[in-house]
Amino acid sequence: MSTTSSFSTAPEAVEQAVSRLQQRFGDRLSLSRAVREQHARGEGLATSLAPDAVVWPEDKHEVCEILKLCHELKVPVIPFGAGSSLEGHVSAPHGGICVDVSRMDRILEVHLEDGDCVVQPGARREDINAHLKGTGLFFPVDPGANASIGGMVSTGASGTTTMRYGSMQHNVMALEVALADGRLVRLGTRSRKSSAGFDLVHLMVGAEGTLGIVTEVTLRLHPLPVEVAAAACAFPTLAGAVQAVTEMQMSGVPFARIEFLDEHQVRACNAYSKLGLAELPTLFLEFHGSESGVKEQAELAQEIAAGNGGVEFKWSTRPEDRSQLWQARHMAYFAALAMRPGCVSVVADVCVPMSALAEQVQLAREQIDAEGLVAPILGHVGDGNFHVLFMPMPDAPAEHEAVDHVYAAMVDRALAAGGTCTGEHGIGMGKKSKLLKQYGPEVIGLMRGIKQSWDPHGILNPGKIF
Amino acid sequence: MSTTSSFSTAPEAVEQAVSRLQQRFGDRLSLSRAVREQHARGEGLATSLAPDAVVWPEDKHEVCEILKLCHELKVPVIPFGAGSSLEGHVSAPHGGICVDVSRMDRILEVHLEDGDCVVQPGARREDINAHLKGTGLFFPVDPGANASIGGMVSTGASGTTTMRYGSMQHNVMALEVALADGRLVRLGTRSRKSSAGFDLVHLMVGAEGTLGIVTEVTLRLHPLPVEVAAAACAFPTLAGAVQAVTEMQMSGVPFARIEFLDEHQVRACNAYSKLGLAELPTLFLEFHGSESGVKEQAELAQEIAAGNGGVEFKWSTRPEDRSQLWQARHMAYFAALAMRPGCVSVVADVCVPMSALAEQVQLAREQIDAEGLVAPILGHVGDGNFHVLFMPMPDAPAEHEAVDHVYAAMVDRALAAGGTCTGEHGIGMGKKSKLLKQYGPEVIGLMRGIKQSWDPHGILNPGKIF
Repeated sequence: MSTTSSFSTAPEAVEQAVSRLQQRFGDRLSLSRAVREQHARGEGLATSLAPDAVVWPEDKHEVCEILKLCHELKVPVIPFGAGSSLEGHVSAPHGGICVDVSRMDRILEVHLEDGDCVVQPGARREDINAHLKGTGLFFPVDPGANASIGGMVSTGASGTTTMRYGSMQHNVMALEVALADGRLVRLGTRSRKSSAGFDLVHLMVGAEGTLGIVTEVTLRLHPLPVEVAAAACAFPTLAGAVQAVTEMQMSGVPFARIEFLDEHQVRACNAYSKLGLAELPTLFLEFHGSESGVKEQAELAQEIAAGNGGVEFKWSTRPEDRSQLWQARHMAYFAALAMRPGCVSVVADVCVPMSALAEQVQLAREQIDAEGLVAPILGHVGDGNFHVLFMPMPDAPAEHEAVDHVYAAMVDRALAAGGTCTGEHGIGMGKKSKLLKQYGPEVIGLMRGIKQSWDPHGILNPGKIF
Repeated sequence: MSTTSSFSTAPEAVEQAVSRLQQRFGDRLSLSRAVREQHARGEGLATSLAPDAVVWPEDKHEVCEILKLCHELKVPVIPFGAGSSLEGHVSAPHGGICVDVSRMDRILEVHLEDGDCVVQPGARREDINAHLKGTGLFFPVDPGANASIGGMVSTGASGTTTMRYGSMQHNVMALEVALADGRLVRLGTRSRKSSAGFDLVHLMVGAEGTLGIVTEVTLRLHPLPVEVAAAACAFPTLAGAVQAVTEMQMSGVPFARIEFLDEHQVRACNAYSKLGLAELPTLFLEFHGSESGVKEQAELAQEIAAGNGGVEFKWSTRPEDRSQLWQARHMAYFAALAMRPGCVSVVADVCVPMSALAEQVQLAREQIDAEGLVAPILGHVGDGNFHVLFMPMPDAPAEHEAVDHVYAAMVDRALAAGGTCTGEHGIGMGKKSKLLKQYGPEVIGLMRGIKQSWDPHGILNPGKIF
């Protein structure tokens, strides 16, 4: 499958690895076809390339043991967290051993005064916030899915709250990593900043499991805001909605969330989550601050919205109103899929400078409509990041061709405007050609140089990124 | 000088490089001893190890030409910006060619709607803010010195506003870099976030010129706050001042600046900047926001300060009051040096988790006093980062020994608490052994692997970091 990796696995090496791991891990290793296939795909890609075995380590030393063996035998190792990635990050195009870290899900330490916590990679983001309840702190990064922290580190996840609290890049303070050969290293510190040599923490964030397996993560936590308000506002035009976002950004007010849903997505959410919103381009907003600060933010947002044709700006600090809105936003993906039973999904994910956003969303919409595709648009527009949820039928090659065509044009426009081919979903297997287009062979060569130096046999998640 | 680099320069190679560069650059190359020595040291280290020549390129293509030649001849290349670094980053322990980028100081593009700008590496941070005047945007990273942006990228600079606006890690969006062999690459994009492959931008930030020479920087800009207020507050005890900071951090209010000055530093600033402050442990604070937001922040800070024994909390939105305070803060280094004419400086720079801050500052103070040293303490305490300005006399070996002793103990304590040996000054030549202590040989080996892959002849700023 991979056109670029020089990796080749000897069948007898895989057999030997499986048999030695079976001896060591007993029923914590599975060869079942169903289990292997379930571990071979995330949410997005249709292709399912299964590993030869799935193993469940229960601590970091077991992760190191597995790596040491696979390094010795030159057998691929594919880390697996929650399986919620969208670009085939967990597929096994060269076979090998899938290392499922879901049993390493403990929250090891919470440092309230320091505002950080230390967790194992299999911990899910919602579990962390449940654990933190009553402490006055929370972990803000919210990609929608209840992803594992190891996976969120490895894809460089972000989401609805990134405009205020940052992405994983800003919220991972330190890592413990099992290297390709099974050595364990600690990167970063628990201090809020550091200039101590190369920033290897942020090299690991977004490395998609190709440089090591994360065995422990130190996360930055944030104080819960005193007051939270949420708002929804519909706009007669897409351009008006996006222009309002640009003006909100330029105001310098630290809005917590600004999400865009086009009329198709609103319709889907209305049906799925029983919302009763006007079926128009809509912004969902959230404000965090003191009581008066939240009021001030909501009033400013309302004023900017009104200036761009916004109608029916409703805001509320009542928890039930807020959670209904955000629950609907988190379900948007499934709401969209429910519009077309039996379809598969291809989720486009570009991020552009704010000045290009309105035009790029508009052009995507026009092209989708011109091709007659079913594809709502939504996104974290406060960061210039938007998604098209393409929903072709599995057995409609013409639809898939049209999707590829529209998606490629979106990426070309994003790159031409100084943007990126992926704001938050990563490269995986799905976007390797788009990454090459974005950076060119020399930059990919620099990445490969690092990979070669850290993982000389290329066993770690081969066939991903490049 | 370097105990770890395998680098060795053939004298005839250096001669040939100098002669070919002289032919090409004419009077934009200097062999003068005074010029070479002026380029051999930053602000901090006493040792001055001069390059064989200094050359002033005027554009990126000239930087590439120089690198190509030096790569071919295996001659060291030392990038130079403003010379304001503190750990010998610009020294030339192996000789070679100093590339002074100060003539590449243009601000190339400002994108108001996107909130970014593109500058050459020799541009100074104050020039950028002067250029932005009237646009409603500013570049917030403030390390004190009027440093060059290329240097700020390479040391991973931060400073007084980092607690609100982030460090260079958060404010560099994209880079153009001349690689060791003279190839030019572009890393990152102008979008606000990206998950496109390894994060090479943040690998370059803090790489201290050992992986490439930065030829263009895309910086994130921030909207100027509507209102700004500044405050100063004295505390009877150091512990009270630091406890107040911890509580301010835990409140979740996005304070813009919280700086600590101990009584010795306040005395120095009073003398140097004619301030008339009470000579007690003191916090300087700054609040950014709306008119009512700033008032709310100042009142909260005052309440927290009072709860920790703070006296004379004075706050003001008048620009002249604010600028007097921050001008004094920026002059703190020179104010301290003026207390002891003829001394040299050794600036310790540790960063620790907030819960450890009060004790660590206190222990540093006690040890300084016990050794009879002259050394004020100050720092960006909102991030847990503090400095000791040691001021030994140049010809007093016992004082230097005591400084080394106290500094080593500070670092040991910081590391034991989960902190770092440098919050913002970097490693350079001065802290290589401390970095090794922090991370151990395996992590340093990972850094070396990257270095080896990107710069196989090791010509880029040899003898720094490791």
